Amino acid sequence: MSWEDNVRKMVPYVAGEQPKSKDVIKLNTNECPYPPAPAVAKLAQEMDTGLFRLYPDTDSTSLTNALSEYYGVKPGQVFVGVGSDDVLSLCFLTFFNSDKPILFPDVTYSFYDVWADLYKIPYKTVPLKDDWSIDVEGFKQENGGVIFPNPNAPTGLFSSLEKVEEIIKANPDVVVIVDEAYIDFGGESALPLLEKYENLLIVQTFSKSRAMAGLRIGFCMGNEKIIKYLNDVKFSVNSYTMNRPAQTLGVLAVKDDAYFKEITGKVMATREWTKKELTRLGFTFPDSKANFIFASHESVPAKDIFNYLRGHNIYVRFWDKPRINNHLRITIGTDNQMRTLIAALEAYLG
Amino acid sequence: MSWEDNVRKMVPYVAGEQPKSKDVIKLNTNECPYPPAPAVAKLAQEMDTGLFRLYPDTDSTSLTNALSEYYGVKPGQVFVGVGSDDVLSLCFLTFFNSDKPILFPDVTYSFYDVWADLYKIPYKTVPLKDDWSIDVEGFKQENGGVIFPNPNAPTGLFSSLEKVEEIIKANPDVVVIVDEAYIDFGGESALPLLEKYENLLIVQTFSKSRAMAGLRIGFCMGNEKIIKYLNDVKFSVNSYTMNRPAQTLGVLAVKDDAYFKEITGKVMATREWTKKELTRLGFTFPDSKANFIFASHESVPAKDIFNYLRGHNIYVRFWDKPRINNHLRITIGTDNQMRTLIAALEAYLG
Repeated sequence: MSWEDNVRKMVPYVAGEQPKSKDVIKLNTNECPYPPAPAVAKLAQEMDTGLFRLYPDTDSTSLTNALSEYYGVKPGQVFVGVGSDDVLSLCFLTFFNSDKPILFPDVTYSFYDVWADLYKIPYKTVPLKDDWSIDVEGFKQENGGVIFPNPNAPTGLFSSLEKVEEIIKANPDVVVIVDEAYIDFGGESALPLLEKYENLLIVQTFSKSRAMAGLRIGFCMGNEKIIKYLNDVKFSVNSYTMNRPAQTLGVLAVKDDAYFKEITGKVMATREWTKKELTRLGFTFPDSKANFIFASHESVPAKDIFNYLRGHNIYVRFWDKPRINNHLRITIGTDNQMRTLIAALEAYLG
Repeated sequence: MSWEDNVRKMVPYVAGEQPKSKDVIKLNTNECPYPPAPAVAKLAQEMDTGLFRLYPDTDSTSLTNALSEYYGVKPGQVFVGVGSDDVLSLCFLTFFNSDKPILFPDVTYSFYDVWADLYKIPYKTVPLKDDWSIDVEGFKQENGGVIFPNPNAPTGLFSSLEKVEEIIKANPDVVVIVDEAYIDFGGESALPLLEKYENLLIVQTFSKSRAMAGLRIGFCMGNEKIIKYLNDVKFSVNSYTMNRPAQTLGVLAVKDDAYFKEITGKVMATREWTKKELTRLGFTFPDSKANFIFASHESVPAKDIFNYLRGHNIYVRFWDKPRINNHLRITIGTDNQMRTLIAALEAYLG
């Protein structure tokens, strides 16, 4: 026997590449192409670093209050974590604790099955329909919990609130998590449904629409009972997850609503322009409401395009996985970056 | 049936109180009374907040390299997390995966049994001896893993490296974690033992001796194989745990060794002065090598002293738990703070 026998051995999730070079046009991890709200830069310079010697507020009260105010829910309905991945991981651990399989789409955020494996949660995938839309009927079978992104990733397709509510309504006995990482680019949040369904949990992030991926801030909203359960598990893992810079700077990213609307608006406008250009070049894609486009070319394999772009310092995301291995997920960058991308594609495909 | 039936219900760890008032003399959570290294303040002001839009380096390469250089181990032997609690929680999940009980002292860091409960790990406590020292023989029974702090908390007692090695040597088939959160205040790290024992893992933190509790940085060191297993689990929970401020500012806290030695030296000198004063006032305590003293008074109950001090805005830590409910854990503050504490105690007890 060896100490290695009892190690939990995992095949981890692989995040999109983070190139060290600054010459790269980075359209592979759905970051925001614009900097965070101006007040963030200002406060960062004025932070009282003397306070760094003290533990941060365990409850991240200022950040939780800012979110509660912004979204019109009670502070006890908000939970913050180290990016939405931290929040989601804790949700899997807390709420998906049944012997029955949890359900999520077959083509979706590829971290879901990793968390399920990690925490030994049985799961079953519900295939997307041929048009990449979520199959609502598939979520009406017996299960131990439900999770799906809206808009879905990597397809970018938004499911109407009617569809979302149909899934929640069919699953009153389990927790239903709607992962709204990309909701701020034209989708409609399930937030109004919180009043009707106490088993609903909505997860969002500062990493995309609030341009704060580097600060690691995610959050979820639900009724106070569900948030209490989540906090009990969180405080059983790590009392202090959010550090002082995340807590103080995060508040400012929430407060500047005009800037938030400005940058998400710009991303959406650039996305619509990019859609037209991609169509012109022979790409097809589901109609994205996210800050990325999931595109497939009519004749050239996705992998070849991926390699070509990479050779020209343009990084997009490609997965060599069944069903999606002829697609690229292209993050929406600045107008300039997208013009460079389109020009490169034109040179290659034309 | 209800969605609540399958919730993982936890009784969480309770951290020491974080008073909002600045008038409090805070000697209850073992923070450092001095600010972080001067370079931290300087760089905080110059941080490129434009980069906040991008995800941080998943591997925290700069921080890992700084630690590897400082401690003379390979970069692949270092793992960083969101405080040592994050590191320890991941270690429990990764390495304590046997049906046999893990072992830790009965009086020790009170998060160990919370993690064991959370991850459904069986455990057995090994009673400290009457002099509060760790009972090495007790760690020679069959087990699924071993963890103990050195110096132990809340006793502050340091176990000699001979004792530590005896425990490791007796347990070649499981992972042995030495939790060295308080090692920089006069103890001797088990670091030299890493070359001999591939099942040894040493956990340390920036929260005490490096005055960075507010930044949430912990780390562990082990052989490359054990660190690889830990990374596989970490990357199955959250790809990006360390945010950009923690990564960049953490490096500076490691680089300024003179400042590090200065503040830990000051804390130790203040501790020795405080020991003499406490003895004079009728307290007894194990001989602490940490940044706190675990003290009991000859005639006045700890709880009464705790309440008296609290009423005078001096916070220390008290646990209403068997065996330790007549002790206070008093963090070492500045000389001034300790003089105020001693004066208050003198007024109350004298």
